[in-house]
Amino acid sequence: MGHPQIEDSSTQQFLKEVADFPNVTWHALTTFDLTVTDEQKLVETADRIVLQFPLYWYSAPAILKNWLDQVFTRRFAYPDAMGSLVGKELGIAVSLGSPAKNFAAGASENYSLSQIMTPFQALAHKLQMSFLPTFVIDQFGYQSDDMKARLLINYQRYLTQKRLGHFDDQTNWLIDRLTTLIASAPEEKRQQLSLILEQIQNNQSTLEDLQMNLKMIQDMEES
Amino acid sequence: MGHPQIEDSSTQQFLKEVADFPNVTWHALTTFDLTVTDEQKLVETADRIVLQFPLYWYSAPAILKNWLDQVFTRRFAYPDAMGSLVGKELGIAVSLGSPAKNFAAGASENYSLSQIMTPFQALAHKLQMSFLPTFVIDQFGYQSDDMKARLLINYQRYLTQKRLGHFDDQTNWLIDRLTTLIASAPEEKRQQLSLILEQIQNNQSTLEDLQMNLKMIQDMEES
Repeated sequence: MGHPQIEDSSTQQFLKEVADFPNVTWHALTTFDLTVTDEQKLVETADRIVLQFPLYWYSAPAILKNWLDQVFTRRFAYPDAMGSLVGKELGIAVSLGSPAKNFAAGASENYSLSQIMTPFQALAHKLQMSFLPTFVIDQFGYQSDDMKARLLINYQRYLTQKRLGHFDDQTNWLIDRLTTLIASAPEEKRQQLSLILEQIQNNQSTLEDLQMNLKMIQDMEES
Repeated sequence: MGHPQIEDSSTQQFLKEVADFPNVTWHALTTFDLTVTDEQKLVETADRIVLQFPLYWYSAPAILKNWLDQVFTRRFAYPDAMGSLVGKELGIAVSLGSPAKNFAAGASENYSLSQIMTPFQALAHKLQMSFLPTFVIDQFGYQSDDMKARLLINYQRYLTQKRLGHFDDQTNWLIDRLTTLIASAPEEKRQQLSLILEQIQNNQSTLEDLQMNLKMIQDMEES
């Protein structure tokens, strides 16, 4: 997480609370002076590395770029060297000061976020990391409570869900989350949450049945 | 010019000598601590701003990004604010550690330099600056003397030629350069250079005649 005034950023403080998961390390960059080997150790222990920052002139703030330049040395990061990053995932969680819809050809920013993130995509390619779709935090200050709640869930999924974009994993993730919530929920909420959980699990098994049937039909057609 | 070890870079020292032109200011960034108003004054006096740096992880080194983040404030740089950058030119002079030919889809870097420079293109677009084609310094250390000499001329043109890519301006630029060289050349070289100059000027007037004739024919056809 690289932000020059991280303590003053309500967006980052909000996300930090939400990122408090057992397997998530929130690592805030507050200085240009780094102990490179410590930072490298942190990177080595992670399966998914999410660079999180506000978009400054269409790329990461200098404090995060400095971290990349210093920590991702050739000896550390290149696949033919220690190869420690091969197969890890690289994600970008970017917060925007202007609306996400403006990032398109012909709109006021004129370039898509995918185009703007090319340097990070190139980095992932070079290091044989798997590049995740960018997680966009769209003008956080202007979002309704409802939108913020949805953002929160999606952000947690971005940090922790096994394979992003896979429907099965998405459902399993939700079931895990609900199970955890139920354990710590007050008595009066527990029943309600349990009903939701049951519903989701029923849906999931219905879906699995459907998929099984579909596969059988396909197998029959092929034989 | 942003390079973390600028004094140790033979590429940058070579280019610095060559950049010693009357209207060119070579401004080396050596620190993260900037006096923002001084930097802004420098920017204001320039018609063409060339950001020069070695490519670090597919973008500018942190020291240059820090300069951009701090100097190009919203109040200073936005067209609707002081509007001081509208109409200026923005160029990138980038030195590469791996061969330029590798920057292509399917080649080892997989992305073109145009794609990689999108954040700077987006910056120029936002500030209503005119974005110049990127000047590429292709693995300087491996270049022959001949290639270095050609690079030198093209680099001087990149910094000083009025309209890049316009043939007339290119010829005029060359005539100016030769005239200056002749004035300071030793006697034995002077005659040789004068002959070259004469040849170029003859070519130019032949070309002008041809263009004049072409225009006359076009005018006749249109009337």
